Amino acid sequence: MDQDRVITYRAIGWVENGFKERAAPEAIAAGESRIVLDPALADGLDGLQAGQRLLVLFHFDRSQGYELRQHHRGDPDQPLRGVFALHSPRRPNPIGATVVDLLAIEGHVLRVRGLDALDGTPVLDLKPA
Amino acid sequence: MDQDRVITYRAIGWVENGFKERAAPEAIAAGESRIVLDPALADGLDGLQAGQRLLVLFHFDRSQGYELRQHHRGDPDQPLRGVFALHSPRRPNPIGATVVDLLAIEGHVLRVRGLDALDGTPVLDLKPA
Repeated sequence: MDQDRVITYRAIGWVENGFKERAAPEAIAAGESRIVLDPALADGLDGLQAGQRLLVLFHFDRSQGYELRQHHRGDPDQPLRGVFALHSPRRPNPIGATVVDLLAIEGHVLRVRGLDALDGTPVLDLKPA
Repeated sequence: MDQDRVITYRAIGWVENGFKERAAPEAIAAGESRIVLDPALADGLDGLQAGQRLLVLFHFDRSQGYELRQHHRGDPDQPLRGVFALHSPRRPNPIGATVVDLLAIEGHVLRVRGLDALDGTPVLDLKPA
């Protein structure tokens, strides 16, 4: 194995929801988000339908560094746990994975509910959940 | 948005299961796989427990290129569908996402069932499912 090989991706789109600052994931997820796909990739949405569930993979672009053991949401009253037992954005590879409800597809824009990503977050992938 | 910004990750570990060649995902998933974590990251497993379900994100390192519309499993008898409506490894960012059963944790090695990744596949992240 080449342990030092770098794996590179590019955003396929970006999140729009007006939450530009850190916020509770539940607050973001309760509202509607738009996933604005690169228009060149719009044909890749063919066959997705409003009403289905979608796994959204995204890059926590505002996350910096990590510890291997963390408190849940940084709350010191919570026990320290391993980062792979948590959903913290502060992880070795800062990838978020959230299942959302697909509300509508409008050209290269997806309207979704349940996404807990900040405005401007780069989206890496979409898959049927 | 800087649409051309490259997002870089490094493997946190690798899959071991003896499936070195292309195989049906079900055949791989039916057996047991080992996820051999970078030993330096082992503390990140603290709090995970045998019996729980785990989301494994991995890099389809043997996937090359993609089309925006594909036949399910390359079968021309299947209708063409958008890549984001499929689980094909041939996608803009070749990331796999599979929920597995965590059978055991042995130091920096996880024994899992349900993983449909080839032997040697780089693992990107683990999260509670």
